[in-house]
Amino acid sequence: MSIITLTTDFGNLYPASMKARILSIKPTASIVDITHSIPPADILSGAFALYSTAHLFPGGTVHVGVVDPGVGTTRRAIVIEVCGHYMVGPDNGLLIPATRRMGDFTTYQITNMEPLGEISRTFHGRDIFAPIGAHLLAGMNIEDIGKVIDDPVEPDNWKVVAEEDRIFGTVLYIDHFGNIITSIPQQITREFAGYGEKIQVFGKTMPLLRTYADIRQGDLLALVASHGFLEISVNQGSAADRLGIKGHPEVEVRKV
Amino acid sequence: MSIITLTTDFGNLYPASMKARILSIKPTASIVDITHSIPPADILSGAFALYSTAHLFPGGTVHVGVVDPGVGTTRRAIVIEVCGHYMVGPDNGLLIPATRRMGDFTTYQITNMEPLGEISRTFHGRDIFAPIGAHLLAGMNIEDIGKVIDDPVEPDNWKVVAEEDRIFGTVLYIDHFGNIITSIPQQITREFAGYGEKIQVFGKTMPLLRTYADIRQGDLLALVASHGFLEISVNQGSAADRLGIKGHPEVEVRKV
Amino acid sequence: MSIITLTTDFGNLYPASMKARILSIKPTASIVDITHSIPPADILSGAFALYSTAHLFPGGTVHVGVVDPGVGTTRRAIVIEVCGHYMVGPDNGLLIPATRRMGDFTTYQITNMEPLGEISRTFHGRDIFAPIGAHLLAGMNIEDIGKVIDDPVEPDNWKVVAEEDRIFGTVLYIDHFGNIITSIPQQITREFAGYGEKIQVFGKTMPLLRTYADIRQGDLLALVASHGFLEISVNQGSAADRLGIKGHPEVEVRKV
Repeated sequence: MSIITLTTDFGNLYPASMKARILSIKPTASIVDITHSIPPADILSGAFALYSTAHLFPGGTVHVGVVDPGVGTTRRAIVIEVCGHYMVGPDNGLLIPATRRMGDFTTYQITNMEPLGEISRTFHGRDIFAPIGAHLLAGMNIEDIGKVIDDPVEPDNWKVVAEEDRIFGTVLYIDHFGNIITSIPQQITREFAGYGEKIQVFGKTMPLLRTYADIRQGDLLALVASHGFLEISVNQGSAADRLGIKGHPEVEVRKV
Repeated sequence: MSIITLTTDFGNLYPASMKARILSIKPTASIVDITHSIPPADILSGAFALYSTAHLFPGGTVHVGVVDPGVGTTRRAIVIEVCGHYMVGPDNGLLIPATRRMGDFTTYQITNMEPLGEISRTFHGRDIFAPIGAHLLAGMNIEDIGKVIDDPVEPDNWKVVAEEDRIFGTVLYIDHFGNIITSIPQQITREFAGYGEKIQVFGKTMPLLRTYADIRQGDLLALVASHGFLEISVNQGSAADRLGIKGHPEVEVRKV
Repeated sequence: MSIITLTTDFGNLYPASMKARILSIKPTASIVDITHSIPPADILSGAFALYSTAHLFPGGTVHVGVVDPGVGTTRRAIVIEVCGHYMVGPDNGLLIPATRRMGDFTTYQITNMEPLGEISRTFHGRDIFAPIGAHLLAGMNIEDIGKVIDDPVEPDNWKVVAEEDRIFGTVLYIDHFGNIITSIPQQITREFAGYGEKIQVFGKTMPLLRTYADIRQGDLLALVASHGFLEISVNQGSAADRLGIKGHPEVEVRKV
């Protein structure tokens, strides 16, 4: 089993260069695209994508994540070892939520560039992260990659604060359907309101329900969706379009 | 050979969770994306996608299709065995045209949830359909999945009626190029008009031709394309944009 | 190692039919999508996609490229053998830049249709190019495919002319970020200007820098990016949107 996943903001074309490098080093690699549609330079959306999927892969999987507006600057390149998985990417917070979800971890700064070829200033996905991931898959010892560091960069804005009658969180991700995924986890949501109760989010009143089809087509609802967070949705519609939400604004949930 | 295909309206990100589950159960699975760009909740477009591709895969292939607006409600989950292939998905018509194209079939309702883990209310692609598909690939006996049913739901709107001087059909699919694919099959088309003859569709007169480049760039044409249905196209352009067609309107073809 | 890559303008769905044919002929094929998002019929963008990625794959890789506005006409179908790689596709210039980058080559016209099944007039990706690629991967002798030809069609517009105080080139590709990739290679760029110097492109003055983050977010810059060509970019923005560039216009670079 040699699985390597890719999560980037590269869209199409550039991921293929990463795959070419991987298959040149580890021809039997099974490459899985998590997504290449992260909005450009949107580290928080990338962090959510990894958070919601990486732990589902079997132990031994290597996850390469590249949302990297600081490419070619002094930002560090890292590999994290956690629970039998490896996370490879820039040290900008992208890899941390998925890592913490899996358990205790050790972070290595990539300082040994010997196993790599020529390194461009603008495409470390191809020149550093993909080949390092493939070398790990091929059995390279993680200790040969660099030195342990204990201060990896944390992601901005992945926050939640629960008060008696309000919860504050952040929009983590807007999915393909226009569902708005917040940073407010299931437990806090369920302590705040029961199924069928109404809450106010983004100034709109909506019920907390179990699934999309529990409300009339086209209506707003709140639910704790499959990722375990409070999500604002429209049954068979786009909540993001309806509410004009984009990026990562703050969310305030109120009792009605 | 362990091929499993995926056809969904999930866009990006969510399919990766399905792949994680599949590779955890069947690490050597060869996963092929048919498409994840079905318009949200558009069962008929999903049914066409499966219809036009599933039969081309070798026997033994498992096809997982998830366009599932009724997720979390009482709609049934099914597996169909047909011609050495397995079709896995919701019982809403999505899987039926591809199945009928391959031959006689047996439908099982998925009632045995034991091989599965926790099941969310909103993401049966990850929690039921992908793992059931992977278990089938790994050798699980289909009879251990559930009970035979004889009333799977048929898709709406996949219709064609041929009269002396008119054919009525439906728009099944609008492809990436803006080609409009109808439900009118080759044989009915060819009995109705010969190559080079003009027909009227969507109120426009156009010739029935053999290939796109048989007409001037930018002009409308009708042809029986590679999927075997009457298609309305613009050479190197988008017929859907030109004619303002979206969704699945009725089509009337007339002699000129 | 049996790697086969796909580069098309098919978007989604149609590539799956190619994959079904490939896996039916060579079940262990490792299929890599280079991109299916080439603008419809845009041969030059497809040629750049192959140019920038094909050589990175290991020897023995088969590359199938299909951007084919002439499908079903008299345009030839070809296979090129170069440096242990095979390039398969229409004879319209699409495959040539990637081929020349790898070295000396031999071109064969596909004339032996025996190993293929029924051939449609509109989808040679599925009916000719994918199965020929798979047969090559499965060990078919290239000499059994057809006859050597010495006049493959060259791509239009991949040009560069360097003068004392000006360089003329073409826009080859606009990537997912809106970066504008020109046909002006690194060496000519570096002889023309040094890092930090200002140049004028598309009537705008901008500095030649090493990486995106070398300029303030939102500002225009020129750089030689990872593909080895002069690229016009906006740090964390879209240069194509900013400058209103689409398609393949001529580029003139001037000293300031």
